Amino acid sequence: MKKNLNTKKLAIVGGGQLGMMLTQAAKPLGVEVVVLDSKGVSAHQVGAVLVEGAIKNPDDIARLSQKFGKDAPITIEIEHVAIDALKKLQKDGFTIHPDPESLSIISDKYEQKKFLKKHKIPVADFKEIKSNKDVLSLLEKWKNGLVLKSRKGGFDGRGNVVIKNKSDVASENIKKMIKAGNVYAEKICNFEKEVAAILVKDVSGGVMAYPLVETVHEDNICNIVISPARISNEVKKQAEKIGLEVVKNLNGAGVFAIEMFVTKNGKVLVNEIAPRVHNSGHLTIEAHKTSQFSNHVRAVMGEELGSTEMVVPHAVMINILRGKGKHAPIVEKVGKSGYIHWYGKEGRMFPDAPRKIGHVTGLGNTFEEAMATAQKIHEISMKGIL
Amino acid sequence: MKKNLNTKKLAIVGGGQLGMMLTQAAKPLGVEVVVLDSKGVSAHQVGAVLVEGAIKNPDDIARLSQKFGKDAPITIEIEHVAIDALKKLQKDGFTIHPDPESLSIISDKYEQKKFLKKHKIPVADFKEIKSNKDVLSLLEKWKNGLVLKSRKGGFDGRGNVVIKNKSDVASENIKKMIKAGNVYAEKICNFEKEVAAILVKDVSGGVMAYPLVETVHEDNICNIVISPARISNEVKKQAEKIGLEVVKNLNGAGVFAIEMFVTKNGKVLVNEIAPRVHNSGHLTIEAHKTSQFSNHVRAVMGEELGSTEMVVPHAVMINILRGKGKHAPIVEKVGKSGYIHWYGKEGRMFPDAPRKIGHVTGLGNTFEEAMATAQKIHEISMKGIL
Repeated sequence: MKKNLNTKKLAIVGGGQLGMMLTQAAKPLGVEVVVLDSKGVSAHQVGAVLVEGAIKNPDDIARLSQKFGKDAPITIEIEHVAIDALKKLQKDGFTIHPDPESLSIISDKYEQKKFLKKHKIPVADFKEIKSNKDVLSLLEKWKNGLVLKSRKGGFDGRGNVVIKNKSDVASENIKKMIKAGNVYAEKICNFEKEVAAILVKDVSGGVMAYPLVETVHEDNICNIVISPARISNEVKKQAEKIGLEVVKNLNGAGVFAIEMFVTKNGKVLVNEIAPRVHNSGHLTIEAHKTSQFSNHVRAVMGEELGSTEMVVPHAVMINILRGKGKHAPIVEKVGKSGYIHWYGKEGRMFPDAPRKIGHVTGLGNTFEEAMATAQKIHEISMKGIL
Repeated sequence: MKKNLNTKKLAIVGGGQLGMMLTQAAKPLGVEVVVLDSKGVSAHQVGAVLVEGAIKNPDDIARLSQKFGKDAPITIEIEHVAIDALKKLQKDGFTIHPDPESLSIISDKYEQKKFLKKHKIPVADFKEIKSNKDVLSLLEKWKNGLVLKSRKGGFDGRGNVVIKNKSDVASENIKKMIKAGNVYAEKICNFEKEVAAILVKDVSGGVMAYPLVETVHEDNICNIVISPARISNEVKKQAEKIGLEVVKNLNGAGVFAIEMFVTKNGKVLVNEIAPRVHNSGHLTIEAHKTSQFSNHVRAVMGEELGSTEMVVPHAVMINILRGKGKHAPIVEKVGKSGYIHWYGKEGRMFPDAPRKIGHVTGLGNTFEEAMATAQKIHEISMKGIL
């Protein structure tokens, strides 16, 4: 492959579908991309240079940084990486987005909750857990139950267990989790709706927000995203304010996603922060003037951000999840306002949940129209599984 | 690079910027792309498989076809290829889009004009040229002069010479052109405006049209594209009707671009047909629900077409042309509604006109706003030249 002359460069820790869509956004901007991941990874299929290695291995992250050198900012597509390696590179003069210190806070969910509380951002009650006794006494207080969460490494709901009553605590799995000493508890939040705020921050600290989206989780995985969110103006105002407040307190440029619960009485609580492009922003590719991917690249490259305006009234995204089977990409009957994105991945359980191997987006003049289009393509996508 | 399982496949003769943008559109649809071109070509930089060879070499086109076999349709990004090789492949059972017979007609501009006339589609007067005498006698009739055009191989105005009076005919260059025997003459058309119709046809013959655009040529190269075209409803109706009529009479699926003159008295004449994605449709990437590239891929893969609707009121595209120098991609100050597309090419004269190495698109609520944005980015892009 011919070397581009004077190309701007970007290094990404991870090259899955997020790295792939970042690469697709970077190419037209004249930005060359290198990713750290294993062979055959999605981003490599669309022209990213590959450094083979593991995102949790500090030596591999060092090798990634050496590929393009200090001229290339380093960013991430997932927060569960060797953050200490990024801190070291930052000390050595590399540009890292987001700031590794903010990454540290976010990648430990308990630290993340403490950080949010410190900044007076509303969250569900939470508590450190050191023993079974801690859980039992919490159950006295939180009658509806609690969620036991792994502090580190969990995503898409992995590492979360719901505990409704005292007998649950006796289970081997839960005892093991607690003994491993990497957990905390959150009071169960009987939310009515989940929403997400996608915001992007430039290197000077200027922030732009995408319109709020509504997320529908199935089996703990964000599965359907509806834009704009169907919420009251009052809830919208709260959520937007919270989004801005969170991002203001995090350092470094790029996209941040803030997942929030809307309770039955209209209160908004932050569930989780993702310091990166996020599944809930995939529909920005077709539904917005500038996608989250293009804006993340612009942000970390130190450039001006693009408009986050919607270009259609309504959009709905549905993930394509597959536990097994080879995927057979098909584009048929995608429809006049339907879009499909295959990630070049094979379906499998990962480790105990079906893997995301693509997504579909439907646009429409009404929510119903967008949803019907998305559902139709999604249904067709099922036929592609052998 | 890992081989996708059960991926749909597409072969493209040529891998320049059009092949690149087709590849970028194909990837999310799960369609793997192979291109025939030389090493380092733009499409290879975004993940297309490369078969090294020349688009005018029948053996190389045969090698391209062997790469993915008969399951993969074969399409083109330029009409000046070894068409006989495509005809042979079609006989052998390959799917070729557009139909090689239609390609033959279009790639010979004189045959193209005869074809248009036969179908009662308005064109400027034209005449076969065999000798200097033919030109001189035409000048008696066409007082405003004529354009001597190469029948084959010309594009971006290459191979066209304006002859205003009898003394022009004496020039060595023109004598040589006529002697080579590959020319015809067209009456000079004093047009007021140029417009282009981009249409896409599916494998069942269903046609969808993008809104008409206005094209501004500088030094014979399409340089600025304005959408929608600033023309009267009457002119619009004529041009749209002509576009449909042309495409109806061409065989094979995919995008067709029809460049037209609008005369001072509001008459529309076809200037030239391109049986492929076209420079005048680049702005569909950001300004429309489905880009010409995505629709071309959908069409040749036998799938349903996407909406050609505009998602913004106005868009302007400007080419980045460079005669020399290395390009330094920059994304800075692209602006909130501005977009840049670098092709991973180096500037050079090609052969005597500056090469297209990128383009910019500006969106706006008014024409003036879109133009100002496009001009601003275009100006900045100049700074990127070393």
